[in-house]
Amino acid sequence: MSFTQLNTNKGEIMAKDKKLVEQITSMDEDFAKWYTDVVVKAELIAYSSVKGCMIIKPAGYAIWENIQAELDKRFKETGVENVYMPMFIPESLLQREKDHVEGFAPEVAWVTQGGLNPLQEKMCVRPTSETLFCDFYKDEVQSYRDLPKCYNQWCSVVRWEKETRPFLRSREFLWQEGHTVHATAEDAEERTIQMLNLYADFCEEFLAIPVVRGQKTEKEKFAGAENTYTIEALMHDGKALQSGTSHNFGNGFAKAFGIQYTDKENKLQYAYQTSWGMTTRLIGAIIMVHGDNSGLVLPPRVAPTQVMVIPIQQFKDGVLDKANEIKDALKKAGVRVKLDDSEKSPGFKFSEQEMRGIPLRVEVGPKDIENGTCVVVRRDTSEKITMSIDELADKLPGLLETIQSDMFNRQKERRDSKIYDAHNYDEFKDIVENKPGFIRGMWCEDKECEVKIKEDTSATSRCMPFNDKEQISDVCVCCGKPAKKLVYWGKAY
Amino acid sequence: MSFTQLNTNKGEIMAKDKKLVEQITSMDEDFAKWYTDVVVKAELIAYSSVKGCMIIKPAGYAIWENIQAELDKRFKETGVENVYMPMFIPESLLQREKDHVEGFAPEVAWVTQGGLNPLQEKMCVRPTSETLFCDFYKDEVQSYRDLPKCYNQWCSVVRWEKETRPFLRSREFLWQEGHTVHATAEDAEERTIQMLNLYADFCEEFLAIPVVRGQKTEKEKFAGAENTYTIEALMHDGKALQSGTSHNFGNGFAKAFGIQYTDKENKLQYAYQTSWGMTTRLIGAIIMVHGDNSGLVLPPRVAPTQVMVIPIQQFKDGVLDKANEIKDALKKAGVRVKLDDSEKSPGFKFSEQEMRGIPLRVEVGPKDIENGTCVVVRRDTSEKITMSIDELADKLPGLLETIQSDMFNRQKERRDSKIYDAHNYDEFKDIVENKPGFIRGMWCEDKECEVKIKEDTSATSRCMPFNDKEQISDVCVCCGKPAKKLVYWGKAY
Repeated sequence: MSFTQLNTNKGEIMAKDKKLVEQITSMDEDFAKWYTDVVVKAELIAYSSVKGCMIIKPAGYAIWENIQAELDKRFKETGVENVYMPMFIPESLLQREKDHVEGFAPEVAWVTQGGLNPLQEKMCVRPTSETLFCDFYKDEVQSYRDLPKCYNQWCSVVRWEKETRPFLRSREFLWQEGHTVHATAEDAEERTIQMLNLYADFCEEFLAIPVVRGQKTEKEKFAGAENTYTIEALMHDGKALQSGTSHNFGNGFAKAFGIQYTDKENKLQYAYQTSWGMTTRLIGAIIMVHGDNSGLVLPPRVAPTQVMVIPIQQFKDGVLDKANEIKDALKKAGVRVKLDDSEKSPGFKFSEQEMRGIPLRVEVGPKDIENGTCVVVRRDTSEKITMSIDELADKLPGLLETIQSDMFNRQKERRDSKIYDAHNYDEFKDIVENKPGFIRGMWCEDKECEVKIKEDTSATSRCMPFNDKEQISDVCVCCGKPAKKLVYWGKAY
Repeated sequence: MSFTQLNTNKGEIMAKDKKLVEQITSMDEDFAKWYTDVVVKAELIAYSSVKGCMIIKPAGYAIWENIQAELDKRFKETGVENVYMPMFIPESLLQREKDHVEGFAPEVAWVTQGGLNPLQEKMCVRPTSETLFCDFYKDEVQSYRDLPKCYNQWCSVVRWEKETRPFLRSREFLWQEGHTVHATAEDAEERTIQMLNLYADFCEEFLAIPVVRGQKTEKEKFAGAENTYTIEALMHDGKALQSGTSHNFGNGFAKAFGIQYTDKENKLQYAYQTSWGMTTRLIGAIIMVHGDNSGLVLPPRVAPTQVMVIPIQQFKDGVLDKANEIKDALKKAGVRVKLDDSEKSPGFKFSEQEMRGIPLRVEVGPKDIENGTCVVVRRDTSEKITMSIDELADKLPGLLETIQSDMFNRQKERRDSKIYDAHNYDEFKDIVENKPGFIRGMWCEDKECEVKIKEDTSATSRCMPFNDKEQISDVCVCCGKPAKKLVYWGKAY
């Protein structure tokens, strides 16, 4: 890549523009390759010498910081407090709850040596922290007065995956894990649903990603949970991405760990628990829902930089001054704005701003300044709007909000258009083969049908939706036996 | 502990008050025991089943969140960007820089198994991430245009300590580590000093902890660094606590890792690097600098809760309403305020608020409400101020700032009164024995004298101060040979 001299010929700008964009594979040609091209070219990650682990670069980490800040605020509004637990789990502690250890033991990293000596008991690096929280709660919770406890931690966890992809599946990833403990089963269920809805609202309002809310089947639920609830988003290629889960543990962990409290009648009771988590996987969702062949497209609310000001012929008198004025005015209006006054050509800067998904760019050159105007370009639609420079600070905050809701509506429409009904197995197989998306199909609640569908088609049950009670048939889409549950099926990441 | 019924008799309140306070050891009797009592009773931490690792509870973690937010803001103002590196370091990568591996290899935790299989190459959990950043920078840095890179990460690190104490020394701790890379030695030195000064200002302005800024001796510098700069604070017991360090690596790591760039003349050059870090140890410093025999004392700027409103006779008509009104008014004025309307007695609530170090408490009961007044009690001085309820929102923000600066000034005076000059070795030994604090003494720059002093007295060289060039003698305080360097010595955590 050479940083060529300034360049004002529109034709040349477009040519350069195209050049940079050509560096990424077209999403229609090879979606997986397009994805990895975007994460690298938009400078979200770098590959590391540590197999299966990635480096999150500033542009990627800043997205995570915005996700964190917004989620953390929403958590705290519901009374959640943050804590920090050790990253190691002694083997005996991991083994305390039977289903849980079976689910996680095969995929953890084991520490066997500390300093120069072998450990007496090996410890794993946390794949999730239920066992640590339970061990903690068994001492902290004594009386009904101590309940509920609603704790969360922001940390990294490790799962020894064989195949990895940036953000979607890596051996180490960042997340939050909430762990709550309650007096009654009802309180625990209420918190489980509350957090699932918080996750769903966050995805829709902040990331402009429409989701289906529902319950996982027995087969797909979390290791050790009574019920797992999930939000499922649909990626551009028609595959589903599980984007957040919330688990109700009942009192199973409490019994395994001895978490008991004395109730108001002074009787000893087991406590009820939940956990819920969201991860850096959300960044993968943003890329695969909103991205296009020019790179990343960020919804304004999550975008670290919302507006990039790009001067044209910046060497000419007054251009950089005006560009700086615009930047300062926007900053004052609460917009996250940057000015690209580097040596690169404007065309190159346009391509970079597009690749990085910055929602708006403001182009301003000598002619514009003469007229008191500039050109505002929307990243999501490529629409160019000529605007008075004096109006920018007034109008751009509103325009960013318009982009945010346009992006959500556009994706909701697209997602809805990719939900297909299957009434029998032939239809089901035909849809999986030819129409990537969600498949609505009735299910007899027999695990064997889930297994068969997965083996035959590689589609899995994504969830039993909350808000979609329609009985599209009264027989199982797989075996034809009577069925009452509607399930969303699909291929998934 | 029983939560007895409401109780307005002042004598009884005081009796209860005393009772709770008696639960912590007096700091004059046993400072170490006082410290561990406070961290537990103020609910900052809990001990975990993982040896040498602690659980940071909400009251402790909220302090860390405030430290993080303020430091992060100050970092970003200097152009620092956040990233995230893997938590594992392959053995071969750790071994790349000779001094560095010698310094850290004996105290790391080793992962030898991933999933069900032994690893081909063992990996340690990062004790610090110089090697990972270098491995990353060797690819990222190609041209002088790529420089400087000023990255930071917030994460946890592991060092397999034998003896541990909450916040001060634990096998896992939270920190930030900044890693920068520059074109010239001068740029690296400038950044190293800039960050040390940022740390010092942060401690003094935000934590109200006065520090000495200076340079570490050869013996005490970081493994692999050319120079290490440090800030040293003095705890209540007269022992020093190293509270933040900033390292200049020169181009040593760059040579070991091959971090080269082409300069403006198109010649290949090695880059220059720095790193700098602060940890959860700062919470230990806050406790040991400001704490007293009633528990924690938090400077208002770092306090998660700045004001606790405690109603007296809250069962009486109008008391809770007025207490809530006060809370709302203070919140609106930007104060971090809570209302304790629990079932506990006022006396118990007072003790809890004092134990947790909340800077101000507002007592309001039926008589106060009749008079339109309330009682404001300062945690740092125990001063009681009768104040009109209507004035609270106007006056408390200013009072909190007064407390902040009073706390700093008080600690600075105390610290200054504990700096002693030693002109010869007898004086030196006498001071170490009888006057806990910093000892100013000249040093011949021979490592042997440092070793001897440590063996004889257990005092170590803390730093060679920047702003204290006074030649208190021209001979080494240990060996009597000519000496030009002034050193601050002291026992340390």
